Amino acid sequence: MHTTMLIEVFSFVAIVAWAMTGALAAGRRSMDWVGVFILAAVTALGGGTMRDVFLDHYPLYWVERPWLLGLTTAAALAAIAFARFIHRLKNTFILLDAVGLVVVTIVGCDVARQLGHPMAIAVLAGMITGCAGGVVRDILCNQIPLLFSSELYASVSIVTGILYVGGLELGFDAGVMAIAAAAAGLALRLLAVRFSWGMPRFVYTKDWV
Amino acid sequence: MHTTMLIEVFSFVAIVAWAMTGALAAGRRSMDWVGVFILAAVTALGGGTMRDVFLDHYPLYWVERPWLLGLTTAAALAAIAFARFIHRLKNTFILLDAVGLVVVTIVGCDVARQLGHPMAIAVLAGMITGCAGGVVRDILCNQIPLLFSSELYASVSIVTGILYVGGLELGFDAGVMAIAAAAAGLALRLLAVRFSWGMPRFVYTKDWV
Amino acid sequence: MHTTMLIEVFSFVAIVAWAMTGALAAGRRSMDWVGVFILAAVTALGGGTMRDVFLDHYPLYWVERPWLLGLTTAAALAAIAFARFIHRLKNTFILLDAVGLVVVTIVGCDVARQLGHPMAIAVLAGMITGCAGGVVRDILCNQIPLLFSSELYASVSIVTGILYVGGLELGFDAGVMAIAAAAAGLALRLLAVRFSWGMPRFVYTKDWV
Repeated sequence: MHTTMLIEVFSFVAIVAWAMTGALAAGRRSMDWVGVFILAAVTALGGGTMRDVFLDHYPLYWVERPWLLGLTTAAALAAIAFARFIHRLKNTFILLDAVGLVVVTIVGCDVARQLGHPMAIAVLAGMITGCAGGVVRDILCNQIPLLFSSELYASVSIVTGILYVGGLELGFDAGVMAIAAAAAGLALRLLAVRFSWGMPRFVYTKDWV
Repeated sequence: MHTTMLIEVFSFVAIVAWAMTGALAAGRRSMDWVGVFILAAVTALGGGTMRDVFLDHYPLYWVERPWLLGLTTAAALAAIAFARFIHRLKNTFILLDAVGLVVVTIVGCDVARQLGHPMAIAVLAGMITGCAGGVVRDILCNQIPLLFSSELYASVSIVTGILYVGGLELGFDAGVMAIAAAAAGLALRLLAVRFSWGMPRFVYTKDWV
Repeated sequence: MHTTMLIEVFSFVAIVAWAMTGALAAGRRSMDWVGVFILAAVTALGGGTMRDVFLDHYPLYWVERPWLLGLTTAAALAAIAFARFIHRLKNTFILLDAVGLVVVTIVGCDVARQLGHPMAIAVLAGMITGCAGGVVRDILCNQIPLLFSSELYASVSIVTGILYVGGLELGFDAGVMAIAAAAAGLALRLLAVRFSWGMPRFVYTKDWV
C-alpha cells in the first residue's frame, strides 16, 4: 500500500522531469511552443503508450487520465520560464531522471504481469516504458537516439526489471522487491553517470549494409 | 445529415490534397515511386491511423475502406504527372489543406466522442487526426517536423476542436457547431498563413540536455 | 502441411538474416550493444509488429514467443563476433534477405486473410510485414529509408502478395500458390539486384512544399 503510493508519486515526478527534458530538447532546436508541448508529452508519456499498444492494454493511461497532458504542458511551460536557471539543476535532473527510470520500469513490469505475460515480456515491458519516450523524442529531433550510445540506461532498466520480476517469481514481497530493485537500479545508474560506464560499442566500417 | 455529407466530401478532398503534398515531399528528395506512394498514403492517412491506434478504434478506417489507398495512389500519380504545373496551384493547395485540417479535426473529435471520451481527449484526437500525418511524413523525409516551427497549424486544429466539442457540450446542434468551428478554424489558418502568425519559439542554447 | 513447415523455417531464417543486417547498420553508426540489440530486434520483428497493430491482431507474435527476442539478440551477437568476415557473405545475405522477404510476405498475407480482410488489405499486410522493419531501422539510424530509393523491394513484396492471394481467390491450393508466388518473387528480387532494376524516380525541384 505504502509502496504503491510511493511508486505513484515517483512516477509523476518522472513524468514532470521527462517532460522538462523533452521541452529543453525542443528548445535546443528552436521549436515553437507547439513543438515544445508535443516533445514534452511524447518524452514523458511515449514509453508507456508504446508498451500499452504492444500489449493491447487499453485505454492508454493518458486517455484515462487526460490531466497528465496538462501536467506535461505545465512542466514544459516551467522549462520555458526557468530556462535561464535550469542548467544549474543538471545534477537534480540526473537524479530525478534516474529515479523516474527505475520507478517507471517497475510500473511497466507490473502492467505486463497483471496481463499474465511471462517474465521476459514483463522485463521488456519495463524497459520499453522507461526508455521508448526518449527514443521517440530523439527521432522527432532528427537525431540518432541517445539511448544507443550513452551511459548505461536501457541496461539499468533491464537490471531493475530482472531483479524485480525475478524476486516476485521467487515469492518475495512485491513492496520489498520494488524498493530493493529500485535502489539497485538507481545506484547502478548514478555510478554509470559518475564514471561514464557504457556498454561496449560495435564499430563496423565496411561499406556493405 | 447534410452537414455529415459535406464533412465526408471535404475529408476526401483533404485526403487527396494531403496525398499530393506527401508525393511532392517525396519528389523533393528524389524518391522512387514506391517512396512517393508510401509518403502519399502516410501523409493522408497517418493521422487517422494514429488516432485509431491510440483509442483502440478498430478496424482502422483504411482497412475498412481499402479504396482509400487507391485514392492516395491516384493522387500521387497525379502529382507526378502534373509536377511541372503544380507549384502554380500553391494557393489552391494552401486552401485545400486548411479546409482539410479543420474538417478532419472535426471528424477526429467525433470518433473520440462516440467512444465516450471526455472533451480533452476529443480535442486531442482531433489534433492528432489533423496533424500526425504530416509529422510522420517529415520523419520519413529525415527532417524535423514542420509542425514544430511553422505558422499556426496544430493550434488551429485545437481551436477548431475546442469550439466544436465545447459547443456540443453546451448543447448546440452538431451540424451548426461543425460549420461554425470549421469556419473559425479556416479563417484563423488562412490569416496565419497570410500574416505569418506563429507560436512563439523557445530557444535554449545551453549545452546541457 | 509440408509447405507450412517450410514457411515457418524460412521465416526464422529471415528473422536471423534481418537481425544481422540491423546489427550491422547499428555498427556502421558505432552504436553500443544496446543499440545493436534494439536495431536487430526492430529490423527483424518491426514489420510483423506494425501489421499486427494495424490489424488489431493480438497478442503480437513476439509477445507470444519471447524466445524470438533471444534469437534476434543471438543473431546480433553473431554479427558482432563475425563482423570482420561477414562482408564476404554479402551474396549469401542478399539471397537470405530475398528468401525472407517473399516468405514473410506470404505469412503476412495469411494473417490478414485469416482475419477475413479483402485481397487488397491482405497484399498490403504482406508488404508491411516484409518491408516496415527496414523502414523503422533506417529511421532509428537517422536516414531516409532505403526502401524509397533502392532496387525493387516493396514491389517484389506486392507482386508476391498479388500472385499468392490472387491464386487463392481463384481457388488454387495454398501450398502450391505459396511456392509459386515465392519462386516468382525471389526470381524478380534477384534479377532486380543483379541488373539494378528500380522503380522510376520522381524528382521535384520546386521550392514549394
